[in-house]
Amino acid sequence: MEHSLTQSLIRDIPDFPKPGIVFKDITPVLAHPDAFRRVVGDMASYAREVQAEAVAGIESRGFIFGAAVALECKLPFVPIRKPGKLPYKTIREEYELEYGVNAIEMHTDALKAGQRVVVVDDLLATGGTAAAAIRLVRRLGADVVGAVFVVELGFLRGRAALKDMPVRCLVRFD
Amino acid sequence: MEHSLTQSLIRDIPDFPKPGIVFKDITPVLAHPDAFRRVVGDMASYAREVQAEAVAGIESRGFIFGAAVALECKLPFVPIRKPGKLPYKTIREEYELEYGVNAIEMHTDALKAGQRVVVVDDLLATGGTAAAAIRLVRRLGADVVGAVFVVELGFLRGRAALKDMPVRCLVRFD
Repeated sequence: MEHSLTQSLIRDIPDFPKPGIVFKDITPVLAHPDAFRRVVGDMASYAREVQAEAVAGIESRGFIFGAAVALECKLPFVPIRKPGKLPYKTIREEYELEYGVNAIEMHTDALKAGQRVVVVDDLLATGGTAAAAIRLVRRLGADVVGAVFVVELGFLRGRAALKDMPVRCLVRFD
Repeated sequence: MEHSLTQSLIRDIPDFPKPGIVFKDITPVLAHPDAFRRVVGDMASYAREVQAEAVAGIESRGFIFGAAVALECKLPFVPIRKPGKLPYKTIREEYELEYGVNAIEMHTDALKAGQRVVVVDDLLATGGTAAAAIRLVRRLGADVVGAVFVVELGFLRGRAALKDMPVRCLVRFD
């Protein structure tokens, strides 16, 4: 396992955010400069592999990794945010939760048509948020060339939700 | 002005988030890799100047800058989040808004007693959020050695709210 240090730092929090869910807490990775550096370095390598021209990060933990990857690769960083947070003109995509619907937004001037974009987030669970992020990027005419996550919860089958999209995850839990 | 490029990229959004407020939109800075690199570089220089041993970033835009500064300085990154977002044991501090009260939280194991901490956020407005962040850090026995922001809204007198705290802002609007 290449990311055995990262994996060993991620801690299980039972019953968060609600009973029966085991939450994967990545804050100990952020507290460990070498591990954090390694994670960002590998995500940046992936962004280079897919020849990304911009990095889109999903609020909030995707900001932590995505902005660092953008800096590392000298690429523009595009924040994808919860509704009502971005001040300029936005487009919105909804995605389903276990109960109800959520949404994310992107500025209409965040990307150019044809631009190659990598989507960054901390966690690939069901893939609903990432799929909505991909739809946002495509609505601006840009091209999603890949998606990269720190953690994959394999049993939630997020890769299936992202279909034909190239996906890289550094640590997988089954 | 050292940060004339940064300043020129920040755009005014009138009547956001509500009528009469002019919002300073920093997303064009994030879209400009040289400007973003420069901002993070100067924030990191400040963190080194005050001999910080950890970087605390305030959700959400503080994550974008704070995590990058932590990486740059090879320091632990501590996320300060909105209520209910951090999965482990937390402490909470409230701060006043124009109407009502808001709160932020930090993990109880995020910092060690005596650790030198720099607080990072994008914007110093009234200083209410930053003051609450400083109280969180101090409750864990750690030492806030400074606070650094991209933008200062001078007319809101945030520096006064932070009293004796060393503060650095890269761009100031009066």
